[in-house]
Amino acid sequence: MGKMKAVVKATAEPGAVLQNMDIPEPGPKEVLVKVKATAICGTDVHIYEWNEWAQKAVRALPQVMGHEFSGEVVKTGSGVESLFPGDRVSGETHAPCGKCYQCKNGEQHICANMILFGVHCNGCFAQYAILPEICARRIPEEIPWEFGAMMEPLGTSVRAAQEVVCSGSNVAVIGCGPIGLGVVTALKTMGAYRIIVTDVSEDRLAIAKELGATSILNPMNCDVVSAVMEITDGVGVDSFIDASGNVKAISDGFKFLRKGGRVALIGLPSRPLEIDLVSEVIFKEAKIVGIHGRKMFETWTVMENLMAGDLLDLKPIVTHVLPLEQYGKGFELLKQGKACKVILDPWLEE
Amino acid sequence: MGKMKAVVKATAEPGAVLQNMDIPEPGPKEVLVKVKATAICGTDVHIYEWNEWAQKAVRALPQVMGHEFSGEVVKTGSGVESLFPGDRVSGETHAPCGKCYQCKNGEQHICANMILFGVHCNGCFAQYAILPEICARRIPEEIPWEFGAMMEPLGTSVRAAQEVVCSGSNVAVIGCGPIGLGVVTALKTMGAYRIIVTDVSEDRLAIAKELGATSILNPMNCDVVSAVMEITDGVGVDSFIDASGNVKAISDGFKFLRKGGRVALIGLPSRPLEIDLVSEVIFKEAKIVGIHGRKMFETWTVMENLMAGDLLDLKPIVTHVLPLEQYGKGFELLKQGKACKVILDPWLEE
Amino acid sequence: MGKMKAVVKATAEPGAVLQNMDIPEPGPKEVLVKVKATAICGTDVHIYEWNEWAQKAVRALPQVMGHEFSGEVVKTGSGVESLFPGDRVSGETHAPCGKCYQCKNGEQHICANMILFGVHCNGCFAQYAILPEICARRIPEEIPWEFGAMMEPLGTSVRAAQEVVCSGSNVAVIGCGPIGLGVVTALKTMGAYRIIVTDVSEDRLAIAKELGATSILNPMNCDVVSAVMEITDGVGVDSFIDASGNVKAISDGFKFLRKGGRVALIGLPSRPLEIDLVSEVIFKEAKIVGIHGRKMFETWTVMENLMAGDLLDLKPIVTHVLPLEQYGKGFELLKQGKACKVILDPWLEE
Amino acid sequence: MGKMKAVVKATAEPGAVLQNMDIPEPGPKEVLVKVKATAICGTDVHIYEWNEWAQKAVRALPQVMGHEFSGEVVKTGSGVESLFPGDRVSGETHAPCGKCYQCKNGEQHICANMILFGVHCNGCFAQYAILPEICARRIPEEIPWEFGAMMEPLGTSVRAAQEVVCSGSNVAVIGCGPIGLGVVTALKTMGAYRIIVTDVSEDRLAIAKELGATSILNPMNCDVVSAVMEITDGVGVDSFIDASGNVKAISDGFKFLRKGGRVALIGLPSRPLEIDLVSEVIFKEAKIVGIHGRKMFETWTVMENLMAGDLLDLKPIVTHVLPLEQYGKGFELLKQGKACKVILDPWLEE
Repeated sequence: MGKMKAVVKATAEPGAVLQNMDIPEPGPKEVLVKVKATAICGTDVHIYEWNEWAQKAVRALPQVMGHEFSGEVVKTGSGVESLFPGDRVSGETHAPCGKCYQCKNGEQHICANMILFGVHCNGCFAQYAILPEICARRIPEEIPWEFGAMMEPLGTSVRAAQEVVCSGSNVAVIGCGPIGLGVVTALKTMGAYRIIVTDVSEDRLAIAKELGATSILNPMNCDVVSAVMEITDGVGVDSFIDASGNVKAISDGFKFLRKGGRVALIGLPSRPLEIDLVSEVIFKEAKIVGIHGRKMFETWTVMENLMAGDLLDLKPIVTHVLPLEQYGKGFELLKQGKACKVILDPWLEE
Repeated sequence: MGKMKAVVKATAEPGAVLQNMDIPEPGPKEVLVKVKATAICGTDVHIYEWNEWAQKAVRALPQVMGHEFSGEVVKTGSGVESLFPGDRVSGETHAPCGKCYQCKNGEQHICANMILFGVHCNGCFAQYAILPEICARRIPEEIPWEFGAMMEPLGTSVRAAQEVVCSGSNVAVIGCGPIGLGVVTALKTMGAYRIIVTDVSEDRLAIAKELGATSILNPMNCDVVSAVMEITDGVGVDSFIDASGNVKAISDGFKFLRKGGRVALIGLPSRPLEIDLVSEVIFKEAKIVGIHGRKMFETWTVMENLMAGDLLDLKPIVTHVLPLEQYGKGFELLKQGKACKVILDPWLEE
Repeated sequence: MGKMKAVVKATAEPGAVLQNMDIPEPGPKEVLVKVKATAICGTDVHIYEWNEWAQKAVRALPQVMGHEFSGEVVKTGSGVESLFPGDRVSGETHAPCGKCYQCKNGEQHICANMILFGVHCNGCFAQYAILPEICARRIPEEIPWEFGAMMEPLGTSVRAAQEVVCSGSNVAVIGCGPIGLGVVTALKTMGAYRIIVTDVSEDRLAIAKELGATSILNPMNCDVVSAVMEITDGVGVDSFIDASGNVKAISDGFKFLRKGGRVALIGLPSRPLEIDLVSEVIFKEAKIVGIHGRKMFETWTVMENLMAGDLLDLKPIVTHVLPLEQYGKGFELLKQGKACKVILDPWLEE
Repeated sequence: MGKMKAVVKATAEPGAVLQNMDIPEPGPKEVLVKVKATAICGTDVHIYEWNEWAQKAVRALPQVMGHEFSGEVVKTGSGVESLFPGDRVSGETHAPCGKCYQCKNGEQHICANMILFGVHCNGCFAQYAILPEICARRIPEEIPWEFGAMMEPLGTSVRAAQEVVCSGSNVAVIGCGPIGLGVVTALKTMGAYRIIVTDVSEDRLAIAKELGATSILNPMNCDVVSAVMEITDGVGVDSFIDASGNVKAISDGFKFLRKGGRVALIGLPSRPLEIDLVSEVIFKEAKIVGIHGRKMFETWTVMENLMAGDLLDLKPIVTHVLPLEQYGKGFELLKQGKACKVILDPWLEE
């Protein structure tokens, strides 16, 4: 048993530390994965900053951080039947129990007892990680490691795009973080007509434009609702996807949604939404769906095919690739809004 | 041209008056209907009381009140091709423009320029009424006049029941007004497993029970959320339908909804809903749909067949049949919560 | 290790024999079930008669026959986590591999490498049977053993009824074997308007009537196509479900289907269907779906709820309950068309 | 009233004649359109050749041929409210009655009493044509006349592509006529992964390749079934769309369809399909839908948006633009398989 580098949330306070620790052993139905690339998610920032949500969500310390990653299976635990050393995999964060109502009824992706990899147990900001067999998705050679590390958030984007039936329709995307941008490239690939994107960062809007947005709107310098209504000839959008978690922006979304439109909600607001159900849901006959993650594994199949066919444009979303040791820099860039997707490479020399 | 009795909202203040007025003439693509039965809706109560909503919604006074009715076509205007004198019809309240985006795309029931019969123009609390041809739905002999007058609200109930895919599932119905009770009988007919109904009125809960509710819960004397969770073995309901418009009750609904559940919203709250999207929509992957009315005319076809086949139980919902002249009594009964559906008969002698 | 009675297909020729054999031991992820009730399916008749299909489908002899059953778990193999001795279960015939494209994409019920219990391995016409853990569905106390033994075919019926969106619509059911009759009771429970049923057996048509058929038609003494058109006022049915496998009857179905109608096919024809795609599928925009079995386990959940809520009428479908030893009599009754569902009880004294 | 040139089916024999005739007058709810471009469809070839189908379908002679076209409204009949002289329009071939079951239930595109423009009445191979108001779809400036003339068949292609839920999936397209090629470009735009196309014409396969086909297969020189199975790693395609009407090719399609796959049928076979329902529909749980035309007008909206957004590649499909007088040459090119889409321009000088 060797040693490995890992970024660890050691104590109940802001920050994280780089530690040298034992490479773990896979238990029954688990695999040990050599991490090739891992990505920082907004959730990791919350845990790093140790905000209110993180204090409630994380169950025990110390804990290896991180949940988005790709890598190579190097060892399999007892009872593992579908994976072998050498397999290239991407990690699904949501580990289903297999026994609850949802798991028994085709909805394991919203398991009632879901274990969140990297939140409820050790994660992947390390050179090696332990993953339940059921969460290790084999990926083809065509998908490079850094894109493999982005499949978990990207799957949420792809699924949201699918939910709104986008070909030939007018879609608004609120928020241009990595998930919002993933939505933009997915919508582009799926044949959306107008892709109207909003964000407060001009840098991120520029990436959205590069990915296929047909209109970019910054609420800091325009009235988004009237702008969208004008772009859509007074009808409103056929659907909007929120990837911002900003309640003001979501409210605006319901105002520029056309009657009969669809809404997919991904972003996690930190406070309640106040909504006039009469004018914005009932008289509009809005159809709203919450999206927590990827269908296991229908969404992965679609996403993998789109990536294998080079049908998604992910390069512009990755703004930084850093060695694992520079996790602190990665977190700072994200907190300052100076980065989009930050990839950490556990094997890159500083 | 003769005279007719009509209940008229004459002035911008509470109340209404019975007037003797000219029987109107149908214009192009309109029909004149001899009203056989008409029903009082909550909307009529708002107009009668002249509340804030009514003051904004009603466009001109004086105006004949009422929008739920059935009757016999007695005269057709120019260009009417599908109806003839003698046809038995029920009235669709929503008159579509035929030209907007929604009308051109198979969604005329949520027309962007919808005219509301009895709100934006003269209605049916009268011996005769003028209806656009497109809003006159021919109904078979098997449907008696008083049930014909209830088809408009009932269609909303039926459609909500259809939206939640109910056969074999656990469904909660919030609110036991005529629409909520219509939902209960529709759910029963469509094979729902558990039909859990909530209301503050024991009388209405008793009707729900009669119509097939498997559990009735009064929030005045129990904790509805924990009661529903217990009834559903800790899973929560597969779906809930709100027919109350009560934001507290709707909030509770989102709490006892299972992960992956569906929500249909019909009731019109008088104030905004405050909702924690994270726990109640996104992590749950709730699917929510607003329902304003009936599909034109798919819902009518289904409803008509269910009624013709005697598959809905409507009798217990009708608590009063009064002559038109006693409209004041009808409104009072409803305001005091002493009635469920009140039918007015314009030809019944006092 | 004790002994048990079992009906065995011993040799490659018509018939079967009753044998005394060792009670088998459950392997990894298998359970041993004490069979409480088992039912004869048409497939069993084929194997009994050793027809062409059977000769190809059965992989090895000798083999215990039978695949529809319920019973009590008495022993669990290694790695079994979700079941315990004493659990009441019903058997799912389709054992998925868990690794193929379908299994990985939410469609394990049509696994590409499906093992058919009782066809590809030993079955349940015995006092004990070995079942893969994944195929043992726990059932509640409210479901008696003989109905538990019918859940496998019934699930096919229920799913077909769900596929055709039946509430308020006109549905034809072709064929009144146990599956067709299961469709009839499911349609009745789900609020179908007209349930038009065809069969050549007056006895079976009488059972259909008892279960809720609104019209029964015997093609031996009427022109089914014109009869259905007349019943549906010249429109045709909204959908038909074939549970006969008779190509002539299926052809007729496509003729009395309305434009835009739906078709669910369950019955297995012994020869090809010849169909004019232009008039019967394309110009009609027919929507056709093949149904091989139950969704695992969404259909089971719905079915179980319907049964627990006493919303299906199964009693009339069971025409005979025999001790296991009288399997020969059961097969004869079925071959002569004198029975509908025959239940074998392995513990009933002759 | 002036004169116009028109291609007329004058007598019950092969061929057609160019005639000089009176410009017709629009009746109530009709518009007179100055034809800017019209396209030859396979149906027109049948009428030209006067084959068996044509002899039954055409109701009266003489008749102006043609049904695919675009043009400018020059005069409106009485009661026309939504169109004005100067409007650019494309013609919908299917004129619904507005009164049948389908029309009353949101399915006017499969009206039970549908009038086929150019088959049941005078068509558009002329300088002017009369169109029912309901069949004249206003189109934006961005759509040039020749593409406007192709919207009718293209809408069938787009709708088929939508029916098979294509983003990220493997789809086979059988047949590379104009509709099949329209499917290919639609699939490409909607993000299909593998687009596998079959045809016997290398020229047409080359166009398919240009439009985005990822594999092209000619059944004359390969075993299509095994080729498709190999391309899809032994799984089979997620769906296939038939635009050939060739029963052998359709049979093959069902063989290379994966379990759980979808099928959209557009092509009109001249003889019945023989199909083994057991292995190719039921055990596969295939989902099959017939497609006769465009949804009115949801499909038009999607198609128009895709065209306005320059998201479809139509240019390669148009192989010839000829003056109306050279209709004979157009028919010959098509009969000899030397053309794909032939546009006739009634105002182009020879």
